[in-house]
Amino acid sequence: MHQIPDNSEIFYRPSPEGKKLKNSPSGGWGAFNCMTEQYISLRNLRFMLYEVLGAEKLTQYPLYQEHSPENFEMILESALELGDRMMRPYNLEMDRNEPQLVEGKIRVHPKVRDFMRTAGEGGWVAAPFPYEAGGMQLPVTINSACGFIFNAANYSMSVFPFLATGSAGLIHSFASQEYQDRYLPKMFSGEWQGTMALTEPDAGSSLSDITTSAEPTEYGYYKIKGQKIYISCGDHDACENVVHLMLAKIKGAPLGVKGISLFIVPQKRLKNDGSLESNDVQTAGLFHKCGYKGAPIAHLSMGNNDDCRGWLVGEPHKGLAYMFQMMNEARIGVGMNATGIASAAYYASLKYARERPQGRKIENKDVTQAQVPIIQHADVKRMLLFQRAVVEGSLSLLLQCAYYTDLERVTEGEAKEKYALLLDFLTPIAKSYPSEMGVHSTSAAVQILGGAGYCKDFPVEQFFRESRIHPIHEGTTGIHGLDLLGRKITMKNGKAFQLFLAEVNEVIDKSLNINELADFALELQWAVAKLQKVAQHLFGIAQQGETEKFMADATLFLEMTGIIAIAWQWLKQGLAIQPKIAEDSFYQGKMMTLRYFFQYELPKIEGLAKRLLSNDFTTVEMQSEWFE
Amino acid sequence: MHQIPDNSEIFYRPSPEGKKLKNSPSGGWGAFNCMTEQYISLRNLRFMLYEVLGAEKLTQYPLYQEHSPENFEMILESALELGDRMMRPYNLEMDRNEPQLVEGKIRVHPKVRDFMRTAGEGGWVAAPFPYEAGGMQLPVTINSACGFIFNAANYSMSVFPFLATGSAGLIHSFASQEYQDRYLPKMFSGEWQGTMALTEPDAGSSLSDITTSAEPTEYGYYKIKGQKIYISCGDHDACENVVHLMLAKIKGAPLGVKGISLFIVPQKRLKNDGSLESNDVQTAGLFHKCGYKGAPIAHLSMGNNDDCRGWLVGEPHKGLAYMFQMMNEARIGVGMNATGIASAAYYASLKYARERPQGRKIENKDVTQAQVPIIQHADVKRMLLFQRAVVEGSLSLLLQCAYYTDLERVTEGEAKEKYALLLDFLTPIAKSYPSEMGVHSTSAAVQILGGAGYCKDFPVEQFFRESRIHPIHEGTTGIHGLDLLGRKITMKNGKAFQLFLAEVNEVIDKSLNINELADFALELQWAVAKLQKVAQHLFGIAQQGETEKFMADATLFLEMTGIIAIAWQWLKQGLAIQPKIAEDSFYQGKMMTLRYFFQYELPKIEGLAKRLLSNDFTTVEMQSEWFE
Repeated sequence: MHQIPDNSEIFYRPSPEGKKLKNSPSGGWGAFNCMTEQYISLRNLRFMLYEVLGAEKLTQYPLYQEHSPENFEMILESALELGDRMMRPYNLEMDRNEPQLVEGKIRVHPKVRDFMRTAGEGGWVAAPFPYEAGGMQLPVTINSACGFIFNAANYSMSVFPFLATGSAGLIHSFASQEYQDRYLPKMFSGEWQGTMALTEPDAGSSLSDITTSAEPTEYGYYKIKGQKIYISCGDHDACENVVHLMLAKIKGAPLGVKGISLFIVPQKRLKNDGSLESNDVQTAGLFHKCGYKGAPIAHLSMGNNDDCRGWLVGEPHKGLAYMFQMMNEARIGVGMNATGIASAAYYASLKYARERPQGRKIENKDVTQAQVPIIQHADVKRMLLFQRAVVEGSLSLLLQCAYYTDLERVTEGEAKEKYALLLDFLTPIAKSYPSEMGVHSTSAAVQILGGAGYCKDFPVEQFFRESRIHPIHEGTTGIHGLDLLGRKITMKNGKAFQLFLAEVNEVIDKSLNINELADFALELQWAVAKLQKVAQHLFGIAQQGETEKFMADATLFLEMTGIIAIAWQWLKQGLAIQPKIAEDSFYQGKMMTLRYFFQYELPKIEGLAKRLLSNDFTTVEMQSEWFE
Repeated sequence: MHQIPDNSEIFYRPSPEGKKLKNSPSGGWGAFNCMTEQYISLRNLRFMLYEVLGAEKLTQYPLYQEHSPENFEMILESALELGDRMMRPYNLEMDRNEPQLVEGKIRVHPKVRDFMRTAGEGGWVAAPFPYEAGGMQLPVTINSACGFIFNAANYSMSVFPFLATGSAGLIHSFASQEYQDRYLPKMFSGEWQGTMALTEPDAGSSLSDITTSAEPTEYGYYKIKGQKIYISCGDHDACENVVHLMLAKIKGAPLGVKGISLFIVPQKRLKNDGSLESNDVQTAGLFHKCGYKGAPIAHLSMGNNDDCRGWLVGEPHKGLAYMFQMMNEARIGVGMNATGIASAAYYASLKYARERPQGRKIENKDVTQAQVPIIQHADVKRMLLFQRAVVEGSLSLLLQCAYYTDLERVTEGEAKEKYALLLDFLTPIAKSYPSEMGVHSTSAAVQILGGAGYCKDFPVEQFFRESRIHPIHEGTTGIHGLDLLGRKITMKNGKAFQLFLAEVNEVIDKSLNINELADFALELQWAVAKLQKVAQHLFGIAQQGETEKFMADATLFLEMTGIIAIAWQWLKQGLAIQPKIAEDSFYQGKMMTLRYFFQYELPKIEGLAKRLLSNDFTTVEMQSEWFE
């Protein structure tokens, strides 16, 4: 934030005296603007839902028969209204006024409480749950689209209900009816927060090493002891209670992941009279972060007074498998978080590029002529196209995953298995591509604004800081590389990989018949062939028993597969664009973004393939002591 | 920063009660560690200065004959001592306690005052100036190496004396003896700050559009009126006065860059009795930034009371040419800033990777065995090698540029022209590669630390935030792309480009004769051929008069040339490494980093070349109204 003399308590600086700095890097982006500027494109969301995916067809299945396209529209518009009214206006404020730990309790921005109640009353927390559980039975596809709106409006704020929904999902799927009755209504109403409590000081990526313990008692509950860190929304004053879905090991359990169980560990437990009492879950600390500051990340300590009770969810030792239901959804959710932030940054930089005059067209050196808006410079258009290609490509893949989830729910047998495998295969990609590219995309927004982009007068530096969390949480990019190359590619004898290739090839085949898409289809065909060549090369190494060498560049393999997956999604969009290209400029813009992706992004696989086909193993051979 | 209950006023959190969190993401990185950890490698700096460049040979020239290798060593060690003692300990503090604007004056961290005096007394501000001007006549190469140390120790703090040196350089080179006598002693002593005042609210990248005006008076000075923004160290309370080297237009001057003059505009002017009085330069605002928070960036307003005086430097209308002397140095300086920050981030993440146990080697699923330090994982080694390759490759190129500057100074005729042209050619690359890659490199440091890297308990998130300024200031990367492709490549009929290629080819030729380097030499030879092919392709477009299309991907051309320039520097290091490879593990580590660069970084030109050789002009054809 640009500070004017004599410290006024404002968030947005008025133009300094002496000069009205309209459209200039140090002024003009007042509070009003910041709060109401575009952060998503509803037009594009509709294009993807109806013109690309055909989400309205979901209403033909019994599960979703109560819904209708009109209903979907109403829900999307309500989401946008909620974003505009209750989320977006506090996005910067929540960044500037971080949560604080005061006398053992984390205080968050007061608007979070209002928002959680409104989200609860509006049915947003329970939206994807069945009617009988109190939900809207909303298709995952539509729910994801709404999530995208919330993420873009105010990422930190969107995390609170998202976590409540996710942890309620675990209770609904795996806990007894008694526990469901006890917790779900309060979580759905936004009165109680839900969390995922996995990470410990000594166990982050390596979950098998958690040490939080659970000791059985004769009263049906377990006594919990241990510490958890980085627990998003792990404690705060916007809700009356926090329900932790916590991984712990029952005393005497097998070592490693096979000994992990899932518990409900509420911050406050219900007494028989319905009142709440402390459950010996203490807030040991609050982490302060680079960005994503509006949401509190807690360090929790359980059982300091030997009085922390946990209730087992499902069967003992199956906790990790249960948790993975939520984690897979959460991973796709993280991809959406990243995409939402990148969308907000894209629109902020687009607006600036249209309004900021600087320089003249490159052939024009006549300084008597007025400066042109920077959007007229090819390099600025390149950075805008880059952002749009990342945002709309990622969104397309994420909605595709959501749609597969819906199809898995409504189908049976072989079809069901197919969609489940496609989802398994795409999860590490749908988490990692948007997350990694979100950092670059928000960085491009900063670059378009130049000095203004680096300053707090403008929102883009916040988006840049926020985006950096996504390659880290819900499994680092490195972990997802291992997941893709070490498990997903080979699972069921490579069936998931084959199904993915079949989906890509289907789009290629259709595109080959359309003049305007045929060249792109050929490029993608060739890219897929290169990916298969790389995979075969790596399997050759694996077959020699060289596991470490096989897996050494798993992150790069993930990157390469990710680019190809996004190219597939752009080509798929192309099939929906082409019949309407003459209709309005929306389709022209989409088509240019498709071209951008194939011209500037897809070629990045060249260098990756060259590296991945190498028989050099520098990173394996490097020794710790050679670093200095 | 991780906040413990009951808000203590500490910067570093002690381990929370209940558990000693050694080597864990939420603990163990105490104040002591943070302040004294390694941030540069003196061993590597010596390797580059003496084993690669042969900087000791500079003492054979009359200009530097008073110096000796022993003297250089002493100076480097003094720089490191200054960094350790007066800079590094305040690096985090200065980030957490930003400058504040209070009653029209910017307050900075109190240690800046001590540091500026010490830097002045130690001769650091005047180091590169001739003896007769009060300097040390220090070779630019050694001065740059010291700058690297300061940048890595505390980037924000290092900017204060760096700007004083740069602006004093302009006065020394172009101002009258009277002005030199008036300003230089106080600037050299660290009592007065110097700045570069170029950017205005409506003129950043487009300097030709500045509007700050200078009206001649009969008293020898000009009356200055206008506004400047983003002026680093433009006002603060660590110095008694601030001397702005300011661009302005004399009334009636030609339009555009040919009408720009350079003025000395002090914040306070000297009265005849030697005291200081206000010069009507008001601090209109203070910018708050994403990072680089320790240095104040001011908005200045001149002549609000019609009493701001400026003194012309040199001749009228030649201001931009004068300023470019400083800007070229400053651009290489920015490359060094970025490299210094990336170096500090590299060593922070290296230390963490060695100490943090997490997971087991990939072939080992036995959870009864202890976890291994993460440096044993190939993907972590990859991220460390990436950082090291960027840091030491950038440093190598930057010291090469400094060395060319020295050679230009000590030679005459054709040799002098050669070094000047090489420097001209390399400046946009030496500014942009380290700046762009510095963001990725510090981001890799964050990734290695995972959740800890995103939190303020550890210093890497600060380095990440700080690094983002470098692709913006001193000319954005886009501007440097235009400079390289639009001017440097073609200047003097392509002579600068040819000289660059000759330097690269010389290293290739030598390396082809050495078994261990021959393959890398061939790779580089092939890369250079590809670069020439790309250049020819682009010139073909230029010859058709398609200037906009020719320049549209200048940024990517800069990126490609940058990667090749760094590969050249790594191969050059290889020539110094090979004879000593068996001597100690330092050389093994260097050689592995060279291998990493050729295996993982050089292949990135494949995708760039494919794009640059395309005849598609998406970014030119894209229209503003097609974005939505």
